[in-house]
Amino acid sequence: MKIIHIVFLFSFLSFTTSQASVNDFCVADLKAPDTPSGYHCKPLANITSDDFVFHGFKAGNTNNSFNAALTSAFVTDFPGLNGLGISAARLDIAENGSIPMHTHPGATELLIIVQGEITAGFLTPTAVYSKTLKPGDLMVFPQGMLHFQINTGKGKATAFLTFSSANPGAQLLDLLLFSNNLPSQLVAQTTFLDLAQVQKLKARFGGRG
Amino acid sequence: MKIIHIVFLFSFLSFTTSQASVNDFCVADLKAPDTPSGYHCKPLANITSDDFVFHGFKAGNTNNSFNAALTSAFVTDFPGLNGLGISAARLDIAENGSIPMHTHPGATELLIIVQGEITAGFLTPTAVYSKTLKPGDLMVFPQGMLHFQINTGKGKATAFLTFSSANPGAQLLDLLLFSNNLPSQLVAQTTFLDLAQVQKLKARFGGRG
Amino acid sequence: MKIIHIVFLFSFLSFTTSQASVNDFCVADLKAPDTPSGYHCKPLANITSDDFVFHGFKAGNTNNSFNAALTSAFVTDFPGLNGLGISAARLDIAENGSIPMHTHPGATELLIIVQGEITAGFLTPTAVYSKTLKPGDLMVFPQGMLHFQINTGKGKATAFLTFSSANPGAQLLDLLLFSNNLPSQLVAQTTFLDLAQVQKLKARFGGRG
Amino acid sequence: MKIIHIVFLFSFLSFTTSQASVNDFCVADLKAPDTPSGYHCKPLANITSDDFVFHGFKAGNTNNSFNAALTSAFVTDFPGLNGLGISAARLDIAENGSIPMHTHPGATELLIIVQGEITAGFLTPTAVYSKTLKPGDLMVFPQGMLHFQINTGKGKATAFLTFSSANPGAQLLDLLLFSNNLPSQLVAQTTFLDLAQVQKLKARFGGRG
Amino acid sequence: MKIIHIVFLFSFLSFTTSQASVNDFCVADLKAPDTPSGYHCKPLANITSDDFVFHGFKAGNTNNSFNAALTSAFVTDFPGLNGLGISAARLDIAENGSIPMHTHPGATELLIIVQGEITAGFLTPTAVYSKTLKPGDLMVFPQGMLHFQINTGKGKATAFLTFSSANPGAQLLDLLLFSNNLPSQLVAQTTFLDLAQVQKLKARFGGRG
Amino acid sequence: MKIIHIVFLFSFLSFTTSQASVNDFCVADLKAPDTPSGYHCKPLANITSDDFVFHGFKAGNTNNSFNAALTSAFVTDFPGLNGLGISAARLDIAENGSIPMHTHPGATELLIIVQGEITAGFLTPTAVYSKTLKPGDLMVFPQGMLHFQINTGKGKATAFLTFSSANPGAQLLDLLLFSNNLPSQLVAQTTFLDLAQVQKLKARFGGRG
Repeated sequence: MKIIHIVFLFSFLSFTTSQASVNDFCVADLKAPDTPSGYHCKPLANITSDDFVFHGFKAGNTNNSFNAALTSAFVTDFPGLNGLGISAARLDIAENGSIPMHTHPGATELLIIVQGEITAGFLTPTAVYSKTLKPGDLMVFPQGMLHFQINTGKGKATAFLTFSSANPGAQLLDLLLFSNNLPSQLVAQTTFLDLAQVQKLKARFGGRG
Repeated sequence: MKIIHIVFLFSFLSFTTSQASVNDFCVADLKAPDTPSGYHCKPLANITSDDFVFHGFKAGNTNNSFNAALTSAFVTDFPGLNGLGISAARLDIAENGSIPMHTHPGATELLIIVQGEITAGFLTPTAVYSKTLKPGDLMVFPQGMLHFQINTGKGKATAFLTFSSANPGAQLLDLLLFSNNLPSQLVAQTTFLDLAQVQKLKARFGGRG
Repeated sequence: MKIIHIVFLFSFLSFTTSQASVNDFCVADLKAPDTPSGYHCKPLANITSDDFVFHGFKAGNTNNSFNAALTSAFVTDFPGLNGLGISAARLDIAENGSIPMHTHPGATELLIIVQGEITAGFLTPTAVYSKTLKPGDLMVFPQGMLHFQINTGKGKATAFLTFSSANPGAQLLDLLLFSNNLPSQLVAQTTFLDLAQVQKLKARFGGRG
Repeated sequence: MKIIHIVFLFSFLSFTTSQASVNDFCVADLKAPDTPSGYHCKPLANITSDDFVFHGFKAGNTNNSFNAALTSAFVTDFPGLNGLGISAARLDIAENGSIPMHTHPGATELLIIVQGEITAGFLTPTAVYSKTLKPGDLMVFPQGMLHFQINTGKGKATAFLTFSSANPGAQLLDLLLFSNNLPSQLVAQTTFLDLAQVQKLKARFGGRG
Repeated sequence: MKIIHIVFLFSFLSFTTSQASVNDFCVADLKAPDTPSGYHCKPLANITSDDFVFHGFKAGNTNNSFNAALTSAFVTDFPGLNGLGISAARLDIAENGSIPMHTHPGATELLIIVQGEITAGFLTPTAVYSKTLKPGDLMVFPQGMLHFQINTGKGKATAFLTFSSANPGAQLLDLLLFSNNLPSQLVAQTTFLDLAQVQKLKARFGGRG
Repeated sequence: MKIIHIVFLFSFLSFTTSQASVNDFCVADLKAPDTPSGYHCKPLANITSDDFVFHGFKAGNTNNSFNAALTSAFVTDFPGLNGLGISAARLDIAENGSIPMHTHPGATELLIIVQGEITAGFLTPTAVYSKTLKPGDLMVFPQGMLHFQINTGKGKATAFLTFSSANPGAQLLDLLLFSNNLPSQLVAQTTFLDLAQVQKLKARFGGRG
C-alpha cells in the first residue's frame, strides 16, 4: 500500500511542483530584463531559503547634508519580493535631520516609528495631514502624495517604512528640480521660485543648466 | 414559430439585461458614497445616452495669473466614465502661460497637441525627458511623475489630455507647498528653499502659517 | 560640506536610478517577446525623450471604401506607452464615410470630436446609446461593446480616440465575419444572415470559404 | 490553563472574525446598489453554507428558435461569487442547434464538453480558431472575442461554460443588431449588409426602426 | 474600387494583426522564462487552433491511497490559458475516497458536480461552510480557504473544478506538513499535534526529519 | 493681479478638492457596508490627520497558551488604510512561544525582526523555506502560503509584520481544524490524523462535533 501511495504521491508532487515555480512565488532573476509586472522568475531548482530573507536593516550613515539615511529592501535588493506587491526600507534620522519632500509614484507608504520622535505629513492643495509620532505609532502616506519626515525629538530617530509595491521608487523634490539639467529659467517659470533661488539650489544639488 | 422564438428571446433578454447594469458599464450615482473602485452604479432603467456624452470641451478662460485654463471631464463631471479607467481634460494656455509643475498621483497622462506650440516634460532625479511639441504630436507622462507644460510658441496653445483613471486628481506643486497651512519654517526645512522665498510664495498662493 | 553632501547624494541617486528603470516607467523593447503585462523594458541608459513622444497624428488618407482612416498610437507604434494602460488614435472620416461596427476586446474608448459632425453609438440587446456629436463633445464606449461612428455632417470629420489600454486591438465586425476562411455556410448558421448575403460580403472583404 | 487559553483564543477569534466578513469572501447583498468591483457584502452573521452553493444546472428547454438553452450561475444568480472573479453556465444544444455569434465583453470563457459533439470557434480579422470538440475536450475563448458553438453531432450536446468574471455578460450579435431600435438604414450603413437583409432580421428579432 | 478597398483593408489588417499577438490573447511559450503576469507570448504566426483546445479530461486512475485522481488543465498543460485568469481540472473520487484538506493560494475554486455525491466544505475559525452536493450542484471555495471534498455516495463521483487563475497551484495540507524535511519536533510545536502523530504521518507521506 | 489670481486659484482648488475625496485616498466609513474593493469613503470634510495615524503598537499580553500576542493595524483598526493595499501588525512572542501554522488568504506577509531571535518558514509540498532571523533581518511569506514563527532565542522576541492588503485575514490551522463544529470523524478523514488526536485538539481549541 505504501508503494501505490508513493506513486500517487509523486504524480501529485510533480503536478504541484511545476505550479510552485509559477504562481505561488516568482523570485526575481535580476540579470534578465524587467517587464511591467516585474522580473523573470528564477528556476525553482535554484531557489533557496536565502531568496526570501534580507539581512542588513542596520542603522545607515547619517553623516551627510540631510542628516538622514535610508536603507532599502526593494526587489532589486531582495529578489524574493518580485511580483508580491510589498517592500520595506529602514529610515534613520539624526537630531535635526529630515527626509525632505518626496513622492513614491507607484506605492503607498506605511511608516512604523521604532525610536525617537518624527513629525511627518503629506500635502493636498487644501489641507496638510501631519502628526508628531512616537515609538509604536504608524502613519500612512497614500500613493503618489508629497510627504516629509522630520526628526523633531532629542537624539536619533528610527522608523521602518513599508510600501505597497515591490519597487516603489522615490522621487525627492530637490533632486527632481535641482540635480538634473533642466534649465534654471524653466524651473523658475514652472515653480514660481525666484531665479536666484533656483540657481542657489542647482549649485547645491549638482544640477546643470 | 415566431412566438416560441419570442419567448426564448425574452428569457435571453432578461438574462442579458440584468448583467448589463453590472459589468458592462456602471454609470456613477454621484449622490451616493464613493468606494475605492468608484461610485455606486445608477439603476439601468435610469440610464440614457446622455450619461455617456460630455459637452463643453470649450476654450477655458486664461485671464488669470497662470495664463492657462483646464477644463476637466473626470467621473465627477461625466458619470459614464465610472469604473472604466479613463478620463480627459482640455488645456488652453495663452501666450507665455504655463501649467506649472504638478503630478497626478493615480494616473498616467497622455497629451495630444491641437494648436500652437507647447514645451512639456517630466523629471527624474537624473534626467529630464522634455520636448517641444507641435500640433499632431503626443507625449506621455507616466503615473505620478512631476511634469509641466509651457506655451513656447506664438499665440494660444490648446491640447487634449487623457488619463488612465476616471478620476486622476491633480496636485500642483505650488498649491501643495504654499496654499495650505503648512508652517513656512517647515516648508523651508523640507525643501531647502530660503525662508523668505517660502513666505513670498505663501503670500501669493494664499497659504497661512 | 559640499563633498559630504555629494557622496550622500550619489548614494541616493544610484538607489533612485535603479528604481526608475523598473516601476516608474518601462519603455517597450519591441524586439523582445511580449508578455501578458506588456513588453520587456528597454535599459534605462538607452531611453531618451523621443521614447515618450509620438509624431504623426496627421490626417489619414480616406480615399478608400470606408471613406475613413485611422492612425494609431498604440504601444507597437509608441513604445513609451508600455505598461501604462493608455493609448490613442486619430480618426478621419470623409463626408458620408463611417467606421463600421467594431469592438475593442480589452479597452474602453473615449472619443473627442475635433471637427465636423459624427453620429456615434454602442449597442446592448435592449438599448442603443447613441448621439450626434459636435466639436468639443466627448463620448465613451465601455470596454468590449459593439459601436460605430458615422460622419453625418457636411465635409470631413476628425476625432481623437483614447483607450484604457496600451494595446486596445480593434475588431471590425465585417472583417471578423467576411475576411477570413470561416465557411459561408457556418457564418450564415451562426448569424441568421442569408447565405447569399454572406457570400456577397465574403467577396467584398476578401474572405475565402 | 484551559481558561487562559480560551481568553486568548477569543481575542484571536474576534480579530479573525471581523476580517472574514471583509476580504476572505464578500457574499453579495443583491438588494443594495452595485459598484464597479461588485455588490455590497452581506453581514457575516447572515451568511450560511447555502450562499456558496448553487442548485439547478439542469438541462434547459431547447424548444426555441435557436434549439439551445443557457442556464447561468452568475453573481446575480449565485451571490457567493461576488468579488471572486469566476462564474459558470450550463449549455444545452439540441441536434442542429447553435449558440450564434456573441461576445462576453468582460470575461474569458472556458468550455468543457460533457456530452455530444460541438464545433466551436472564435474569430480574428485574419484567422479563425475553431475545432470540433468531443466529451472531455476544453476550448478557451479569450476575453471579448466573437465566438460561436454549434451542435455538429447526433443528438443533444451539453457543455459547461466557466468565465473569468462573476458577471460576464453575454452579447448576442443578432440581438445587438436586430432587436433594439437602431434604425435599419444605420445598421445597413455600419455593417455593409443589404437593407432588405437588415429589415428581415429586425422582423425576426423584434427590433423597431 | 475593389482595389482601393483592398489596399485600405490591408492597412487595417496589418494594424489589427499586430495587436492580436499582444493583448487579445497571449499563448504561452512554455520554454521561455515565466514572469509574475505569466509566460512570454508565442509569435502569432505559430499559433493554431490547437493552442486553444485541451484534450484529455478523462477519468484519472483512483487506485491509490486517496482513492482519488485530479487531472489538471492549467497553463502548463494548456498554453492558450496564459494571461487569461482561468483554468480547470477534472476530479474523480472512488467510493470512500476524498481530496483531503488543501488550499489554492492564488485562486478561487468553483466546483461543478457531474456524477455521484460529494460532500464538500471550507473552513473559517468560527464557521464551517459545507454541503452534500448532487449532480448539477455548484459550490464555490473562496481564494486561499482550506477546503475538502469527500465522496459520500455510492460508487464513483466526478466533478469539474474551475479556477480564477491560469495557474492556481494546490497545496495539500498533509504534503505541506509531512512530506518535506521540516523537523517533526517543529511540526509538533507549530501545530499542537502530538509528536508521535507527526512521526506516523511523516512515515506515511515520505517526509524526512 | 492678486484678485484675478485668487479667482483662478479657487476654480483650481474646487476642481482639485473634489478629486481628493475620490482617488487620492478613501478613508473607510466603517459603519457603512463593505464592498469587494473595501469600505465606502468618509466625506472629505470629516477627514483629519488622525485618520492616517494609528497608535498602539504596544507589546501585547503573551500570558496565554501560545505565549504570543498579535496587535493588528488592519483597515478595521485603522480606517486610513482603506483601498491602499497595505497594513501591519506587531508580533510579540515570549520565550518558547510561537505563532503556529497559519495562512493569510489574500496577502503576502513581510516580517521585520526588531528584538530577539525568531525561526520562521513557509512550506511547499517539496521544500521548506525557513531561517533563523535576528534583529534587522526580513523574511517574506508569499500570499496564501502556510507559515510559522517560533521564538528560538533567549527572552522575548518582537517583530513587525506588514501585509500587501488592507485586510489580510489570518487563518490559524488549529482554529480552522479544531475550533469550529466540523465533525471529528470528517477532520480525521480529510487530514489523515488519528481520530483520538483530533478529539484531543477539539477539546483544547473549543470545537464541537
